[in-house]
Amino acid sequence: MDKENTDAVIGPDGQPMSKKALKKLQKDAEKAAKKAEYKAANKTVQQDVVETVDVSKGLYGNLPMIQSVKKLDPGTEYLDVKDLTPAQADRKVWVRARLQTSRAKGKQCFIVLRQQKWTVQALAAVGDKISKQMIKFIASIHKESIVDVEGFVRKVEQGVESCTQQDVELHCVQVWVISSAEPQLPLLIEDASRPETDETSLAKVNQDTRLDNRILDLRTTTNHAIFRITAGVCRFFREHLDSQGFIEIHSPKIISAASEGGANVFIVSYFKSKAFLAQSPQLYKQMCICSDFDKVYTVGAVFRAEDSNTHRHLTEFVGLDLEMSFKFHYHEVLKVIGDMFINIFKGLRDNFKEEIETVNKQYPAEPFKFLEPSLVLEYPEAVRMLRENGVEMGEEDDLSTPAEKLLGRLVKAKYDTDFYILDKFPLAVRPFYTMPDPNNPKYSNSYDMFMRGEEILSGAQRIHNPAFLVERAAEHGVSLDSIKAYIDSFKYGAPPHAGGGIGLERVTMLYLGLDNIRKTSLFPRDPKRLTP
Amino acid sequence: MDKENTDAVIGPDGQPMSKKALKKLQKDAEKAAKKAEYKAANKTVQQDVVETVDVSKGLYGNLPMIQSVKKLDPGTEYLDVKDLTPAQADRKVWVRARLQTSRAKGKQCFIVLRQQKWTVQALAAVGDKISKQMIKFIASIHKESIVDVEGFVRKVEQGVESCTQQDVELHCVQVWVISSAEPQLPLLIEDASRPETDETSLAKVNQDTRLDNRILDLRTTTNHAIFRITAGVCRFFREHLDSQGFIEIHSPKIISAASEGGANVFIVSYFKSKAFLAQSPQLYKQMCICSDFDKVYTVGAVFRAEDSNTHRHLTEFVGLDLEMSFKFHYHEVLKVIGDMFINIFKGLRDNFKEEIETVNKQYPAEPFKFLEPSLVLEYPEAVRMLRENGVEMGEEDDLSTPAEKLLGRLVKAKYDTDFYILDKFPLAVRPFYTMPDPNNPKYSNSYDMFMRGEEILSGAQRIHNPAFLVERAAEHGVSLDSIKAYIDSFKYGAPPHAGGGIGLERVTMLYLGLDNIRKTSLFPRDPKRLTP
Repeated sequence: MDKENTDAVIGPDGQPMSKKALKKLQKDAEKAAKKAEYKAANKTVQQDVVETVDVSKGLYGNLPMIQSVKKLDPGTEYLDVKDLTPAQADRKVWVRARLQTSRAKGKQCFIVLRQQKWTVQALAAVGDKISKQMIKFIASIHKESIVDVEGFVRKVEQGVESCTQQDVELHCVQVWVISSAEPQLPLLIEDASRPETDETSLAKVNQDTRLDNRILDLRTTTNHAIFRITAGVCRFFREHLDSQGFIEIHSPKIISAASEGGANVFIVSYFKSKAFLAQSPQLYKQMCICSDFDKVYTVGAVFRAEDSNTHRHLTEFVGLDLEMSFKFHYHEVLKVIGDMFINIFKGLRDNFKEEIETVNKQYPAEPFKFLEPSLVLEYPEAVRMLRENGVEMGEEDDLSTPAEKLLGRLVKAKYDTDFYILDKFPLAVRPFYTMPDPNNPKYSNSYDMFMRGEEILSGAQRIHNPAFLVERAAEHGVSLDSIKAYIDSFKYGAPPHAGGGIGLERVTMLYLGLDNIRKTSLFPRDPKRLTP
Repeated sequence: MDKENTDAVIGPDGQPMSKKALKKLQKDAEKAAKKAEYKAANKTVQQDVVETVDVSKGLYGNLPMIQSVKKLDPGTEYLDVKDLTPAQADRKVWVRARLQTSRAKGKQCFIVLRQQKWTVQALAAVGDKISKQMIKFIASIHKESIVDVEGFVRKVEQGVESCTQQDVELHCVQVWVISSAEPQLPLLIEDASRPETDETSLAKVNQDTRLDNRILDLRTTTNHAIFRITAGVCRFFREHLDSQGFIEIHSPKIISAASEGGANVFIVSYFKSKAFLAQSPQLYKQMCICSDFDKVYTVGAVFRAEDSNTHRHLTEFVGLDLEMSFKFHYHEVLKVIGDMFINIFKGLRDNFKEEIETVNKQYPAEPFKFLEPSLVLEYPEAVRMLRENGVEMGEEDDLSTPAEKLLGRLVKAKYDTDFYILDKFPLAVRPFYTMPDPNNPKYSNSYDMFMRGEEILSGAQRIHNPAFLVERAAEHGVSLDSIKAYIDSFKYGAPPHAGGGIGLERVTMLYLGLDNIRKTSLFPRDPKRLTP
C-alpha cells in the first residue's frame, strides 16, 4: 500500500478524519441514533471505533443508520464498480457495494464487492494502518451487507477471473458497514446464479424458493439483465409507435361490466356495489378510436381470473395494447404491428447484447431469429402444415397449445424465423366483436402473432358498425345490457379499425427462450401466489 | 370546378370508375354485406348509386361497411385536413373526415370537415357532374358521420374564419358516407367546445352529460389537446429518468395485504380467497431498490377506495412513481425529482404550445410559472407564512386543503412560482415508513410538491433498517403480519433510499389550470361513476 497517500484519512462523508473529526463522527452518530430512538440491530459485529490499542481506529466499523445527517462532500469520489479499470490505477476512491463473499487467510482478507452485475475483488492485509482487529471485522461482515470501502485501485498481473473487473483490485483503507444483512440468507446469490446446465453437485435454487425470497433472487446478474430487457421492450414499443403518430392513453382497470362474456373476471367490492377488473383495455382503446384519436397505445396491468397453473399464464400481467383506424384494409394495421415487432427485436439485438449473453449463460437458448418484413401465414395453410405432420384437426378448430408449438417448429424449419403472423383465424374461435372475413364467412379478419411457437399477440379488425355488432353479440350470447356503453360508442360514426394486445412478460420470456413466465414478472401473480 | 380534371372519376378505393367498375363496386358491396349477414342500419339516407337520371351517379352515397374487401390503391391520395394548404391548390385529393356541420343554400351545400382538431370547409354546387339529388344527399348526412370526400383544393380570397384551414376550401367531386352517425346526438361538439367565459345564451354542456357521452365529448379540440399533453407528461417523465439511469419496472396491482394500514382499500375476490388493490406501487419500488435496481420508476394504475367526491379525487388514477437509493442525504433524490419536474414543465412549454393555447381558449388560465432550480421551503416556514396570514394551526398539524391553496397563493406572490417543494413535514402526519428528521424528532425527511397550490407529489426518505421499521410500524398500530414481506425486504442489506408518487391527472389539471380532475382522466372513476 502507498503509505504517503494514506496519511490523510478521508471519512465516508468526505471530511478529513482528524481525531476531533473522529470524535465528532461518533458523537453525530450517537446523536442521530438517539434522536431517531433507534438502536442498531446487529450489535454482534459492532466494533469500538475509538479502541485505543487499535491502529485502525476510525477506519472500520458499523456506521449508524444513514438518516440524512450530512451531505456528501462534493470532493469525495465514489466510483461505480464498473468504472474500476486500469485507467484508475493508484487512485484512492470510495466504493459503496454489497459484500458478496469474503475469505480470510491469515493476515489477509479478500472480499468480492458487487454492484448490480459488476464485481471487483478487494483486499485488506495487516499493516501500518490495518490491524488484526480490522481484518477480523471485515471477515465477520455478513454476506449481502452493504459496505463503504475506501481503497487504492491497483492493477493486477494475473486477472481476477471470478470478477467482472478482472484487471484491477481494490486495496482497502477503510471499511464501513452501511447496512448489515442477517447472518443466515434463505438463498445464496451464487447458487441462484448457477447455469441450468451445470452438472456438478453444487446447489441450485428452485423456483418457489426464488419467488418466496424474490428480493435476494432479483439481485442476480441474470435477473437484472432480464428486467433491463423488459424495460427495453416497453421503450422500443413506445418509441416506434410514437414515431408513427400514436398517442399514449390510460384506460380504467375497474369497470362496471365484465365485457368479454363474464368468464375469468375478478370481482371487486366497489363501495356498496360491485365491479370488475378489466381483462384488457380493448374496449377503451376502441372508444378512443371512436373519439378520433386515430392511433393509440397503452401499457398497463390486465387481469385474468383463470385458474391456469401453466408456464405461461399469470393472473395479472402487463399488456402492451394498440389500436388504430385504417382506410380500407386491416392489413394496413397488420403491417404497423409487424414493423413494430421488428423494431423491438432489432432494438434488443442492438442495445442489449450484453444482457442477452448474460441471460444465455444461465439459461442457454438459440438466438432469436426474425424476417424482415415479417412472415404472414394464413390459417388454412397452418392447418395444412399441421395435418401433413400428423395433427388431426378440423378447418375451423382453434390451435391447441401443442399444435401451436409444433407449428412454430414447422415454420422455423421452413422459413428460419422465430416470429410470424398467423392471419385469418376461424370466426367461431374469436370474440363477438371480430370482423368476419368478407370473402369467407367461416374465417375472420383476425390474427395472432407468435414467438418461438407461442402466442404473444392476439388482434383483429373490430366491427365498427353498431347494428352488426349487436347482431354478432346476440349470436355469441353476450348480454347487450353489459356492453351498452361499448355499443353506443359506435353510434355516432366510427372509422374502420384494428389492433391487438401483447403480453409483455411473454415477449421477454420467448425472446430469451426462457421456460417460465414467472422468470419475466418481477412479482408474479398466479392462482397460488399473491406474495411478495 | 375544373372540368378537364373531373373526367377520370376515381373511386375511393383508387380504381377508375368505369360503368363496369361501378357495377362491380355495387356487386362487391352487396356480396360483402351478404357474406357478413349485415344489413345497413340507416336506410333513410341511402341513395341509389346507379339511378339513371342522376348525372352524379357513382359520385355519392353510402359505402357498405368497410370490411377489408379491397386494399387502398397506392396511387390514391388521401390527404390529412391539416395538410390542406394553398401549397396544394388545384390538386384533386381524397379526404376522410367527420362531417361536423352542413348548410344547404339553394343549389349549394357547405360542409365543415373535421379531423381531430383540424377543420376545412367543403363546397358542393349543382353543375355538370353534381346533381340536385347529390346536394340533397350531402345536406342530409348526419352530423359526426365519417365521410370520404374527393375534391379540388381551391385557394380562397376571404379567409374561412370558422375553420383551422382558413386559406383553402375543398370543391367536392365525390362524397361517400363511410360510417353514419345517428340523427340525434346527445351533445353537440360546438356546444362542448364553447369557452367557459362565453356569456351568450348559447348552450354549454355540463360535466355529467359530457362524461355520460364521453365518446362525443372527447372529440373536442380541447380534449384532444388535454390528452396529448397528458401523454407528453408521461413521455418527459420517462425520458428524463431514463437519461438519469433509472429502470422502468411494473409492480403488481393485486396484493395480499392492505399495506398502508388497511383503510381506503378495495377488496378483490381472488379465487377462494381475497386480496386487495394496491394503493401505490411504493412497497414494490422499495423492494426493487433492495434488489439493487438502484433507480426505478413505474407508470401505472393506483386505487383508492376513498368516498371523496371532490374536484381532485379519483378512485383510480395513474401513478408516476419513482424511487432511488442515495449516498448520504435524501436531498440527492429531492434534486432529481425537482429537476425532473422542471424537465416536464419545459417539455410541455416547448413542445405543446399549440395544445396549451387550445385548452386556454376554452378554459382560460394564467401561464404556468416555475423556477430553476425549484424553490424548496421547509414546513416551519410554511406554518409561519400561514399564521402571518390568519391561519390558526399548530406546528405539527397537517395542511388543510384551504391552507394548501392559500400557501400556494402566498408562495406565488412572494416567489413568482406555481411549483414548489415543501420539505420536512411533521413526522406525525406521515406513514410509518417515513424516516424521522435526525435533527428534530417532531419532523421527518419527507416532502410534498405543489402545483398552483395543490399537492401533486408526496414522498420521503424511507426507513431502510428493518428493526427501526418494526418499531415505527408498531407505533402506528400497523399489524406486522400484514407487512412481513415488506419488512423482510430490508433484512438482507438495504441502501438508504427515497422517492415519491405523482398523480398524473393532477399534474395535467394543474399545469393547465383546470378546475376538475375529471377533465384530465379519459374515463374517470369516482365513488359515483363507473361508466363508461
